Amino acid sequence: MQVDFNEFLSASAKGMKPSPIRALLSVVNQPGVISFAGGFPNPATFPIEDLKNIMMEVLEEEGTKALQYGGTDGNAQLREELAKRYVRDGLDIDKDNIIITTASQQAIDLTAKVLLDPGDIVICGLPSYLGALQAFGTYQAKLVGAEKDEELEAVVRAMCLAGKKPKFIYAIPDFQNPTGLTMTIEQREYMVRIARKYDILILEDSPYKEIRFEGEHMPYIYSMAPERTILLGTFSKTFAPGFRLGWIVAPKEFIGKINIAKQSADLCSPTFDQMVAARYMKKGLFEKNLVGTVEMYRGKRDLMLKALEEYMPAGVTWTKPDGGLFLLVKLPEWCDAKELFDIAIKKNVAFVIGEAFFCDGSGKNTFRVNYSFMDDEGIVEGVKRLASAIEEFIFMKK
Amino acid sequence: MQVDFNEFLSASAKGMKPSPIRALLSVVNQPGVISFAGGFPNPATFPIEDLKNIMMEVLEEEGTKALQYGGTDGNAQLREELAKRYVRDGLDIDKDNIIITTASQQAIDLTAKVLLDPGDIVICGLPSYLGALQAFGTYQAKLVGAEKDEELEAVVRAMCLAGKKPKFIYAIPDFQNPTGLTMTIEQREYMVRIARKYDILILEDSPYKEIRFEGEHMPYIYSMAPERTILLGTFSKTFAPGFRLGWIVAPKEFIGKINIAKQSADLCSPTFDQMVAARYMKKGLFEKNLVGTVEMYRGKRDLMLKALEEYMPAGVTWTKPDGGLFLLVKLPEWCDAKELFDIAIKKNVAFVIGEAFFCDGSGKNTFRVNYSFMDDEGIVEGVKRLASAIEEFIFMKK
Repeated sequence: MQVDFNEFLSASAKGMKPSPIRALLSVVNQPGVISFAGGFPNPATFPIEDLKNIMMEVLEEEGTKALQYGGTDGNAQLREELAKRYVRDGLDIDKDNIIITTASQQAIDLTAKVLLDPGDIVICGLPSYLGALQAFGTYQAKLVGAEKDEELEAVVRAMCLAGKKPKFIYAIPDFQNPTGLTMTIEQREYMVRIARKYDILILEDSPYKEIRFEGEHMPYIYSMAPERTILLGTFSKTFAPGFRLGWIVAPKEFIGKINIAKQSADLCSPTFDQMVAARYMKKGLFEKNLVGTVEMYRGKRDLMLKALEEYMPAGVTWTKPDGGLFLLVKLPEWCDAKELFDIAIKKNVAFVIGEAFFCDGSGKNTFRVNYSFMDDEGIVEGVKRLASAIEEFIFMKK
Repeated sequence: MQVDFNEFLSASAKGMKPSPIRALLSVVNQPGVISFAGGFPNPATFPIEDLKNIMMEVLEEEGTKALQYGGTDGNAQLREELAKRYVRDGLDIDKDNIIITTASQQAIDLTAKVLLDPGDIVICGLPSYLGALQAFGTYQAKLVGAEKDEELEAVVRAMCLAGKKPKFIYAIPDFQNPTGLTMTIEQREYMVRIARKYDILILEDSPYKEIRFEGEHMPYIYSMAPERTILLGTFSKTFAPGFRLGWIVAPKEFIGKINIAKQSADLCSPTFDQMVAARYMKKGLFEKNLVGTVEMYRGKRDLMLKALEEYMPAGVTWTKPDGGLFLLVKLPEWCDAKELFDIAIKKNVAFVIGEAFFCDGSGKNTFRVNYSFMDDEGIVEGVKRLASAIEEFIFMKK
């Protein structure tokens, strides 16, 4: 007896597409492949020795609490530690403005669930983080590209005139995924002005902000528009993605709504992992470890930029990030990065095709590369292979 | 400047209500209160010493893997260990029929997301697990009570005639929440027959099955209708809820759909926790610890039944579970357990009002009590307080 599950699927499920990154994993994880595809932190940044001590402490001192159910809002000590850092960075919040989530992907998903009905409009960058675009898609939202400068107001005004006021603007202001670029203070002020003028929320996704290689930290958009900003944070790039810990910072009224949605979604995030993270922060180890992480990634970024400069054929350009994990490479206009991918994988190097990050279907001539995960030799060798793949591709096509 | 978030909420969020259990937590956790309200395992069952060793092993031997992102399907060793147990129990599956979730609440939520459109019908028991009813509600499903015996077919047929074929039957066949009762083999066969006749799926939620105090284990519904059953499991009652690990067993086609939905929901469940759980199972510690847990809970169930027998006033009845964590108390028809709750909490004893478990608004004269969490003295003293609250309540009302 055979059941066709397609007959039972919800409209949401029928529209779901597998993440192109996840779908690549089996290919890019093959031995010998130099993968710039994932968004993985470098395992050398994982504080394994510190965690051994902290885990023993947690099990010995509060093991029965750590293995039990926790509150849906999350561990109070952890929220206090997080709140302290945000207050230091100019936010007027306390721990009850924070709810812990099962990493920032859940933060995105719950926010979307609480805000989006089918057909609702979300404004997002061109390009923008594809995991967020996919999550919005599962609630059948319509994604409209535009984030910066004049274009934003033109799009928002047009939408409002059409009776489809956008629900929120999705922005990654610092070292954006996939470009690695950062919004200027003027761009932030402009976004806040538009959001206020048209009464729209801002979803500020901030996984990379602390990984700054040079220059001054920019203010959180949340600090500029606390009444309408929902700020997302995560430990996945600066501590340990394997713990699946992220959080939402928002006005308390909104945190209350997220809390109810989270009760149905997974009741609470891992208690043990939260208590380990709380102690890790309280001991000052988070700040200490972050210094080393930033230094390591700065070196890797420098190395990658130098290798790109040295090996890339003419006509290829790329972004120059001041922080974060990624940069975006741009091929000549007529190139399709999807076709390049097949050649690249034969040369044992992988990236993520840029198209998936552009909600309007553009960006076909772009691809994202990650520099945090690969060892230094791999970065240089990978860029060489990439350059040779691009040369072969351009030669073939000409 | 003040934003009214209610103006931005999705239809789903507008209908969300806080869990009555979660809402109670602040009251029932006050010192001096004997709480039968939660569904918490007893902390004495947590294998803290074993976990110390295993966590050190994981960090030492595969720390960089344990702290990194994992696959969305979950740790392969863990899925293999789980599959082995299911094969032992008569299921024809392998590890790729299993996806790890962030505890079984997420398993319920993802299943609902993949299957349910607004207005879709779910058949559920009267009563049934309120966390599941709430999750179905967030996808705006319509819940229809009926699970066993003739009533089930009558309801399903009527729904089909009305052009609203139910999507699935939600059942907790073993030591059901909140009654603690178990479906007979005949009831399981009947449910499968109806599901096949009308081409409906079955969602078999099985968090308590292994906590059997006496009698023979019943077959999984999955083993009787593998083509249309989605089986949910969890470590929350038999290992450690603080790890937030559950899973879905289903035909591979359906697991593929859940995988895509999970990518957007939280990407993957905690890697470290999964690797700890995999080693815990592989070493045989899960089976070993389970024996002690079952023994402890059997003693607590006996103690509670004896105390109820001894102290409860005439006219009060209760279920007699052969396993699990709960039983359901029934007051005389005219009593409202909500009113009783206020008296009980003044006497420092708490329970969960039964009404929340009945999707048709019935069950007002029932309440659920948990016997796994409280120490033995607390069970007897709590039942005494409950009995005295009921007597006072009945006296007041007469």
